[in-house]
Amino acid sequence: KEDLKGTILRLAECIVGDKFIEAYAEHPYVELDYHGVKIDLVPCIKSSSIDEAKTAVDRTPFHTIYIKSNLSDNLKDEVRLLKGFMKGIGCYGAETKIKGFSGYLCELLVLYYGSFINVLRSSINWKPYSTLIDIEGYYKDAEEALKLFNAPLVVIDPVDRNRNVAAALSLESMSKFISASKFFLESPNLSFFQPKSIKPLSANELIEEIKRRGSNLIFIITKCPKVHSEILWGQLYRSLKGLKKLISNFDFKIINCDVWSDEKELIIFIFELENATLPSIKRHVGPPVYIQNEVKNFLNKYLNSPIVFLGPKIEDCRWVVYIKRKYIDVKQLLSEKILTARLGDLIKSSLKERCVIIENEEITKLYSSNNDFSIYLTNYLKGTYPWLTKE
Amino acid sequence: KEDLKGTILRLAECIVGDKFIEAYAEHPYVELDYHGVKIDLVPCIKSSSIDEAKTAVDRTPFHTIYIKSNLSDNLKDEVRLLKGFMKGIGCYGAETKIKGFSGYLCELLVLYYGSFINVLRSSINWKPYSTLIDIEGYYKDAEEALKLFNAPLVVIDPVDRNRNVAAALSLESMSKFISASKFFLESPNLSFFQPKSIKPLSANELIEEIKRRGSNLIFIITKCPKVHSEILWGQLYRSLKGLKKLISNFDFKIINCDVWSDEKELIIFIFELENATLPSIKRHVGPPVYIQNEVKNFLNKYLNSPIVFLGPKIEDCRWVVYIKRKYIDVKQLLSEKILTARLGDLIKSSLKERCVIIENEEITKLYSSNNDFSIYLTNYLKGTYPWLTKE
Repeated sequence: KEDLKGTILRLAECIVGDKFIEAYAEHPYVELDYHGVKIDLVPCIKSSSIDEAKTAVDRTPFHTIYIKSNLSDNLKDEVRLLKGFMKGIGCYGAETKIKGFSGYLCELLVLYYGSFINVLRSSINWKPYSTLIDIEGYYKDAEEALKLFNAPLVVIDPVDRNRNVAAALSLESMSKFISASKFFLESPNLSFFQPKSIKPLSANELIEEIKRRGSNLIFIITKCPKVHSEILWGQLYRSLKGLKKLISNFDFKIINCDVWSDEKELIIFIFELENATLPSIKRHVGPPVYIQNEVKNFLNKYLNSPIVFLGPKIEDCRWVVYIKRKYIDVKQLLSEKILTARLGDLIKSSLKERCVIIENEEITKLYSSNNDFSIYLTNYLKGTYPWLTKE
Repeated sequence: KEDLKGTILRLAECIVGDKFIEAYAEHPYVELDYHGVKIDLVPCIKSSSIDEAKTAVDRTPFHTIYIKSNLSDNLKDEVRLLKGFMKGIGCYGAETKIKGFSGYLCELLVLYYGSFINVLRSSINWKPYSTLIDIEGYYKDAEEALKLFNAPLVVIDPVDRNRNVAAALSLESMSKFISASKFFLESPNLSFFQPKSIKPLSANELIEEIKRRGSNLIFIITKCPKVHSEILWGQLYRSLKGLKKLISNFDFKIINCDVWSDEKELIIFIFELENATLPSIKRHVGPPVYIQNEVKNFLNKYLNSPIVFLGPKIEDCRWVVYIKRKYIDVKQLLSEKILTARLGDLIKSSLKERCVIIENEEITKLYSSNNDFSIYLTNYLKGTYPWLTKE
């Protein structure tokens, strides 16, 4: 692997000088910028049969051979259509940010169903976690294969019976494709392939929209670590989940949340909450009266405690107290506790260095100065799918 | 029954003139005020054996005979102690307001366990829904009897094997007795029998306390129907449940609630809420993408609907919209919808005539002018049991 690394780094330097990022999955590899096109340069070890392949990428040449020898020129155009459709509806690519359909998966679907339009027609009958596509017929028992791979969609790799080509596909991307397919078949039009981009709200419209919703938008802003986008989005989604849990654990109710990054400078987590503040009083349920040890501990803790508003008293068969809540303001909670959330390590480091928490219209300045973010936030606040129009 | 009614009404008139209320359970009966003592005058039909008894009250003479012939003078004192204890901790009486231990039940417990102190000692080992007391040994199989009556405590009536004497006892009253018994045995003192009454907060302290909690107290005030207290409390509890459901159905979060009445003029429902207002935006989850008929209805309803803020979009495998909430203010909800709640009929009539909804410190005026209510509300806000002191 050290050899591979040396080779790929030298190669990258020859092509683009120092405009590349080292990355590491199973293998070392390189992400580079070639005349504005982002390219992953991934080395692999040549093996004479799939059984000798040591890592996932060593499988790639076999995929190439399989597709080249099975896909006619006609089918290649069908594949281009499917990829264009997938891209237009936001489902193309197996990368962490999208969790969609990989190029190879699109090729196999066209191979299996025979045409772009047949892939769409068939997808309408897909059911998540019970759809199996096994081109080479490796598995006699569909149940067994589905159970083995346990994924929304299972497509057995024709060159490797132990791999699900759709392993990276999320339930959401699969569902989006199913729905878009149905709409496209009912009224086919170009908007599926070339969605019009949304016109961002003006700063005033943004403020108006926030008022109209009556919710509380909390923005957590930090800086973006210099790292390959795969790793970045893995860490962002993990951190989003961790923050969600932290906020919910302290009883703040999340309506919706998301994370945005330009993958260069900025990361912005968004939490839309029912309320940014909670009452001080909180009901806390203790043990049933007849579990004597637990009752003893509970009463020792809360009898004469200064944080008790009301009780201890018995409700149904349990001891209950009404106590003072630790955090009544989500901004205070976050500023004191954010690093205790389950975060990606890189995001944790970023937040240690810089963590700005603002709410509602305080975002206006950043919003107005960043076109990508303003498009994103407009979509977050008001978006639906461009292809989704009244039947 | 018409005969019974005539007789009992004439009797009541002889004793107290017109100071009585007619009531009706299985039989007609009368509630009267005899020199400040509230008395239920309940007629029954004399029968020669329990099998001929036609209604529950016809059983009473048999109870009297059973107790008189089994309870020694010593045990009578023990019964008085138990009833005093029950009364002191607020568990005495099978009436709807208390749902506690009836006089007859106290007598049977002393008979069975042999003394006041033994009742307390034994109660510590009671477990709700699995405690059976069968003095006459009617049931060989405890499991069977417990299943048959399915109540927190099952005490088979010695004069009628088909009746649970503790049928009216709530889980809460039973649990309260178990806990108070434990505390009494650990440190016996008179406060169990003669609890000190709580000193009500001053108006200023009340306002301070409400602020300190940060919750929203909503008071629904109506007039009290002229009706027997049994019927009144039945209707009050049913109405409380109905109002609770109405408020929760519209997403307002209830921390605690209760109902108070002087049983003469006033009824006051109290709801302590996390928030009296909610954001306008609300997440609404629709069908999975692959249930096509439901999806069609859902999209027809929400696509281009003016109440949609965001979406329709797909989350996991479901269509979701973020829509405008119908009621963002609980007072508006109640003033428009209160009569749609499941209410007792009499309470519904009262609310039709008069329904005042106020919040937080708006209660101060009524609070200051009504001593009973101020004691009650102080207890509601800050109360615990007088007998509950640090071990």
